Amino acid sequence: MSADHRIEYDVQMIVDVLDAGNDALASRCGARALVVVDHTVEDLYGPRVRAYFEHHAIPVAVIVLPAEEEAKELASVLAVADAMADTGLLRRSEAVVVIGGGVVMDVVGLAANLFRRGVPYVRVPTTLIGLVDAGVGVKTGVNRGTHKNRLGTYFAPTATLVDPSFLSSLPARHVRNGLAEIAKIALVKDPGLVSLLESAAARLPHIDYTLTAIDTHEEILARAIGGMLAELEPNLHETNLERIVDFGHTFSPSLELIADPPLLHGEAVAVDMALCIELSSQRGLLSEFEARRALNLLYRLGLPLTNRMFTPDLLNTALEDTIKHRDGLQRVPLLTGLGRATFVHDLTPQELADAVARTRAARQTIEALEARTALDEQEMLARG
Amino acid sequence: MSADHRIEYDVQMIVDVLDAGNDALASRCGARALVVVDHTVEDLYGPRVRAYFEHHAIPVAVIVLPAEEEAKELASVLAVADAMADTGLLRRSEAVVVIGGGVVMDVVGLAANLFRRGVPYVRVPTTLIGLVDAGVGVKTGVNRGTHKNRLGTYFAPTATLVDPSFLSSLPARHVRNGLAEIAKIALVKDPGLVSLLESAAARLPHIDYTLTAIDTHEEILARAIGGMLAELEPNLHETNLERIVDFGHTFSPSLELIADPPLLHGEAVAVDMALCIELSSQRGLLSEFEARRALNLLYRLGLPLTNRMFTPDLLNTALEDTIKHRDGLQRVPLLTGLGRATFVHDLTPQELADAVARTRAARQTIEALEARTALDEQEMLARG
Repeated sequence: MSADHRIEYDVQMIVDVLDAGNDALASRCGARALVVVDHTVEDLYGPRVRAYFEHHAIPVAVIVLPAEEEAKELASVLAVADAMADTGLLRRSEAVVVIGGGVVMDVVGLAANLFRRGVPYVRVPTTLIGLVDAGVGVKTGVNRGTHKNRLGTYFAPTATLVDPSFLSSLPARHVRNGLAEIAKIALVKDPGLVSLLESAAARLPHIDYTLTAIDTHEEILARAIGGMLAELEPNLHETNLERIVDFGHTFSPSLELIADPPLLHGEAVAVDMALCIELSSQRGLLSEFEARRALNLLYRLGLPLTNRMFTPDLLNTALEDTIKHRDGLQRVPLLTGLGRATFVHDLTPQELADAVARTRAARQTIEALEARTALDEQEMLARG
Repeated sequence: MSADHRIEYDVQMIVDVLDAGNDALASRCGARALVVVDHTVEDLYGPRVRAYFEHHAIPVAVIVLPAEEEAKELASVLAVADAMADTGLLRRSEAVVVIGGGVVMDVVGLAANLFRRGVPYVRVPTTLIGLVDAGVGVKTGVNRGTHKNRLGTYFAPTATLVDPSFLSSLPARHVRNGLAEIAKIALVKDPGLVSLLESAAARLPHIDYTLTAIDTHEEILARAIGGMLAELEPNLHETNLERIVDFGHTFSPSLELIADPPLLHGEAVAVDMALCIELSSQRGLLSEFEARRALNLLYRLGLPLTNRMFTPDLLNTALEDTIKHRDGLQRVPLLTGLGRATFVHDLTPQELADAVARTRAARQTIEALEARTALDEQEMLARG
């Protein structure tokens, strides 16, 4: 038995997707819809969401889910599936719409996949990480026990509508969270995006990470999304387990689950990337200068480079789990330049321990230099 | 974004799959395996299963699940997924093997799909309905609330190994359960299989439904499986909702969930098929003679033609739910001959009520005739 299954979906940038006059979302819903939002979206945009569908004469049921990582569990999937049953949507021509961050997108995607073995759903990501990462791919999932995304599927939405105007209400920490995934795409495959980010990073800390205030923000988003899609398209079901988009995702899943105080996904990824930048440099794959540039970029994007729980022991355990996930080989993406990556399969515990120490030292150096620079700037300002 | 995902799997007939000398199963497991069986398989074949893998030097963990429909729920899926995590299988090169009936096959299929977004699994069906139906397709699923298979996915096994030798330990009622799905395939698309079944049906009641005692049983199995695969292959994800293999599956899902005493899947399907045979005849799609032949076949295969809970009210409610499942249209398969089907979209409540009454009358006529025939046979035997 052999059959080809065609997977098609749109990722479209739609500014002001909730404006009454904009029919991009309404045209994809059918006669009725179930709308799932998270608490944050409900607080900030709840009335606009309802008004939008009312304007377009689409009867909707709205359900609200928590936005926190703890809600990324099977019980939330069942709540959504039961709401689908209650709403009595037709199997193919009436859609589920999810408006929110990565957690509800992953939860609703899984529910849409499981309900009647698959019903259409439309994603409207409202966080930066959702815009450039979770919203763009086809992964769904929930956590299970101590494992992130242990249960999930590949299930494409009919469309993802990317609206940068949601960024205006996003707290700085969540902007930085998304910038981590953008930096990842830049570092593994797009030298031009590295430069764009470096320019933005020089200004972002001074404007409380208001990304939309950076005049290149649409280009940054488009390149990050385009780069992600280009990597996913030939490998939607991860047939090839050597994925450069796994950069920063080798050790971070274990860190993310135990970090105390908790880390956002992108923060854990940044800590992993910093370590892998040092590993790349230790191996001579990346020059010291490039490694410092990469670490500086992460630092100026407001991302952590180290974490006290990121110990050699944790790294070894995390790598073992990742090896199972990558079917018996390490397949760790490392950098061979700023915008270029390769894979290694023979990292040793000693290398990991060395990299932990070197990353901590590098962070201290960067902090000292930045403090000095800040001081110099203040002095220059004071002298006028 | 557009990508083709190729789905490939083998359905192979392997006689005596658990014989030590047979490496069909072992060769598909990798270095280690998790084996999931149901209670019945554990009781009848547990030691043989363990001896088989021991002989082939494949370390296995074996877990045992209930075989009953009530166990077809998410909790069972989680039990299997947690066992996968405990076993620590590699993501792609070590397999999950499920040996059992339809319930565990559907449960394990869903767990294999969800775990790490998909790990390989091999199906060894041990019931007749598993051999010809659940084991052949790519559906996975569990029940939810009052809905059969409400949560599930399409996820192909790497292989299904079909071994008719399991039929020797199958109780008569479960043979008849599988014969219902074979009769379905015959009635909608294979006149030759109808004839084969009619010949077998003349003898089966007298030999307690020992299918393997019928000399054409391998041909019957091969035609049923081949017919099923031919229908599934171009429509694996049910892109086309007009499926002739849905014959007998329009009203039966609702009946199956409320029947008291409980019905097996094939029994509920038979009751639905009998009704649809009458509907076909009422509409003039099927001659009275053909309708009687079809009902006789089901009756002689030991299947029920009616059920006291199959009321006009239930039929209307069931059809409403099916219409949602078929995206707004009835798409009810009816027969236009013995081995030929079409679809209708305009069944009325009156037609359904008439068909219920006519099916009950037809059943009484058949019973009376069969009783008379049995009496005649006895008299002839007595007269010598």
